[in-house]
Amino acid sequence: MPKQLPLAAMDACCSPLAQQPLTEEQAVELSRLFKAMADPVRLRLLSLIASHVGGEACVCDLTDAFDLTAPTISHHLKVLRESGLITGERRGTWVYYRVHPEVLARLSAVLVPGGRRVPA
Amino acid sequence: MPKQLPLAAMDACCSPLAQQPLTEEQAVELSRLFKAMADPVRLRLLSLIASHVGGEACVCDLTDAFDLTAPTISHHLKVLRESGLITGERRGTWVYYRVHPEVLARLSAVLVPGGRRVPA
Repeated sequence: MPKQLPLAAMDACCSPLAQQPLTEEQAVELSRLFKAMADPVRLRLLSLIASHVGGEACVCDLTDAFDLTAPTISHHLKVLRESGLITGERRGTWVYYRVHPEVLARLSAVLVPGGRRVPA
Repeated sequence: MPKQLPLAAMDACCSPLAQQPLTEEQAVELSRLFKAMADPVRLRLLSLIASHVGGEACVCDLTDAFDLTAPTISHHLKVLRESGLITGERRGTWVYYRVHPEVLARLSAVLVPGGRRVPA
C-alpha cells in the first residue's frame, strides 16, 4: 500500500480537468487510479465496500456477489489496496476493507465538467 | 463511435457507487470508460480538449504538448472517441474534438463518496 494517499500531487483540491490541463505528474497519478477501476469486478467490489453498512466490509461480505474463486477476489482487492482506493485492516479472523472517501471525492471533483467544483 | 452515449444503463442519473452496489451491467459500462482514462496521455488529451477555449480542440492544438508522433496521438484520440468520452467532427482540413460533458458529469456523480449527489 502506498505510504501516502494517492493524488498528493493534485492541487489543493483538484482543479477539474476541464478547467485547466492536467500536468504530466497529475495525469500519471490519476491514470493509476483509473486503471485500478478499469475492471468490472474491481468496480463492483469498490461499490460493495463503499455502500456496505458502516462503510466497511470483510471478504466474507463480498464473495457471495461473485461467481469467482476466493484467490481471484483477493487479487482484485489487492489491486484496489495498492492503488490507494481502499484500505484493509485485520481484526481477528477477517480483513475489513474501507474506501478512502477523500480519494473518491478528489476523483469526482477532477471529472466535474465545465470547471464547476463539487461542494465540500 | 458508439451510437448512443455510454452510461445509458445507469439509473436516471447515476446513483453514486457508495450509495448502492453497482449492477454487473453498470460496472461493465463504467469500467470501459475508466479503461479509456487509464493512460496518462489520454487523460492529458481529454483535459486539453475539455479545457481548450470554446471547449473544442483540433489535433493541431494538441500535438505540441506531447513528445509523441502524430499516429500515436491519433491512436489515443481514437480510443477516447470509441469510449464515448469525446466526439470528433471534421471541418475543412481538421477534425475538431469535444468532450461529452454529460459523460464526465455522470462519472463524477458516480464517484461522489458517501452517497452525496453532485447538484444538477
